[in-house]
Amino acid sequence: MNRILRIAGAQMGPTQRADTRENTLARMISLFEQAASKKVDLVVFPELAFTTFFPRWLLSGPELDSYFEMDMPNPSVQPLFDCARRLQTGFYVGYAELTPDGRRFNTAIIVGKSGEILSKYRKVHLPGYVEPKRENKFQQLEKRYFEYGDFGFACFESPQFKNAVLGMLICNDRRWAEAWRVLGLQNVELVCIGYNSAAYDPSGGDGEDATLRSFHSKLVVQANAYMNATWAISIAKAGVEDGAGLIGGSCIVDPNGQIVAEALTLKDEIIVADCDLSLCRHGKDKMFNFSAHRRPQWYGLITEQSGTLSPSHLPGGNENIA
Amino acid sequence: MNRILRIAGAQMGPTQRADTRENTLARMISLFEQAASKKVDLVVFPELAFTTFFPRWLLSGPELDSYFEMDMPNPSVQPLFDCARRLQTGFYVGYAELTPDGRRFNTAIIVGKSGEILSKYRKVHLPGYVEPKRENKFQQLEKRYFEYGDFGFACFESPQFKNAVLGMLICNDRRWAEAWRVLGLQNVELVCIGYNSAAYDPSGGDGEDATLRSFHSKLVVQANAYMNATWAISIAKAGVEDGAGLIGGSCIVDPNGQIVAEALTLKDEIIVADCDLSLCRHGKDKMFNFSAHRRPQWYGLITEQSGTLSPSHLPGGNENIA
Repeated sequence: MNRILRIAGAQMGPTQRADTRENTLARMISLFEQAASKKVDLVVFPELAFTTFFPRWLLSGPELDSYFEMDMPNPSVQPLFDCARRLQTGFYVGYAELTPDGRRFNTAIIVGKSGEILSKYRKVHLPGYVEPKRENKFQQLEKRYFEYGDFGFACFESPQFKNAVLGMLICNDRRWAEAWRVLGLQNVELVCIGYNSAAYDPSGGDGEDATLRSFHSKLVVQANAYMNATWAISIAKAGVEDGAGLIGGSCIVDPNGQIVAEALTLKDEIIVADCDLSLCRHGKDKMFNFSAHRRPQWYGLITEQSGTLSPSHLPGGNENIA
Repeated sequence: MNRILRIAGAQMGPTQRADTRENTLARMISLFEQAASKKVDLVVFPELAFTTFFPRWLLSGPELDSYFEMDMPNPSVQPLFDCARRLQTGFYVGYAELTPDGRRFNTAIIVGKSGEILSKYRKVHLPGYVEPKRENKFQQLEKRYFEYGDFGFACFESPQFKNAVLGMLICNDRRWAEAWRVLGLQNVELVCIGYNSAAYDPSGGDGEDATLRSFHSKLVVQANAYMNATWAISIAKAGVEDGAGLIGGSCIVDPNGQIVAEALTLKDEIIVADCDLSLCRHGKDKMFNFSAHRRPQWYGLITEQSGTLSPSHLPGGNENIA
């Protein structure tokens, strides 16, 4: 079986608070059509792709609710699903989900070539904080607006995508090696990621700038793709949204951690790559043959605790000099 | 308290099978003196620093035993310990350990400024295989010659090193995010690593060359240093040992994952950096504030199994479309 999956990233430029949903959908459909003209199987859109990155503001009431999708699809996004069916091309997209019982998640779905939802993921690693920080020009209120994802990290396969083992992450998740490893332990072959990452230090200080944050964004995708012998595609919403900068740096990375396609702008832009899924085998069979080389008996702290332990609380330590 | 630790990496060029221990020790002492002249606190030597990388050959009997240290220190390495005391400088060094009861490990120690052993680590992630592969020109027999390390990943602190929280890894360990995370969960501030990494595809094929393997070596150190907000120093034995190439690429990496010092040769070479330990705080307090952001309830596979599960064996997966 041919195991070359052609994928596209649809990096999006900024979406302003005042932009209409119709305008945003028109941009997405234009990107979708550009990608489909290159005969791709799957197009990856960013996190929270239908709206501006609203967690940067303290909001409530109707405006806050306007950023959430109560059904998926719904009339305002239906054109994207119709586009999938018309172009016979799948897509990944991130959106703010409001469930019928009032729960809110930062969610992504992969939609098949007939416009059917194939899998859904809810972001586990929510950055930011609950209470606004008065001293910050822009907030990072994801912990206020969303619950932690409750599905964990699951993979799925579909004959629509050459039976590639697909996994999803969202934005900050890509910085957490645990998330990648749980996908890796399910033999993942392509990790799809959308993000909105500030081009300034999101903690309000001046410890990070756009150059450093773009470096971090690529570094974690490259290294975690290599360490799990998987393809990865990491796609930004980029540019300046109502005065707040977002980095670009969308890229497609091979199982050696090498960038094979990369966005050059902070605007709407398509990147494309042919992913030979068989290239995952070298790493999965040799260096990262998990059953041959992993030693879970020494990984206990990873699941036993969330925060840090001081060294003196551990067995061993300075005692290991016998 | 001043929290700037000045460290050196003592990359070593090749050591041939016929080289004498005296010659190797003289090279190490020369490197140690060069580093100490720059007033460093700690010098990091490679993995298996006293000998050639002998797991590339099928060996037994007296020659195999000759590569192992039955005591540490012992008369043949005592000059290095004397050097530490004379120069009032600590060191990390890797060696093959043979215990009084006949157990064999790939081991590293950190030795204090008076020549005393402060901490010891035994390599957990042994690469390679037990039975030689006839088709390979060079073997990778670490799984034959060594037992898996039985200390896990412990950190320690010493006032000799500005109370930096120090952790050790050896060679292949640096490719395993779990090892770094267990150190990160102990608040590690400097990870010391020595390595011998083939400049050819160690699995015997042609899937990797020296350029790609050097890229991998730096990529994993940079990303894991960033993801754990720690300094790291990763030091090679490099060059051609009896026809078998080893990559160089020794480097010192800051908590942003940026290389601040890097070896330029495949020979004996010193690299030096001032590590401001306070720079770890930005990451540890913000992006990688583990207690605020980690979600261990979703990391279970990491400790429940060593090898991979197929997606269909997992709960969730395609069911997550409710």
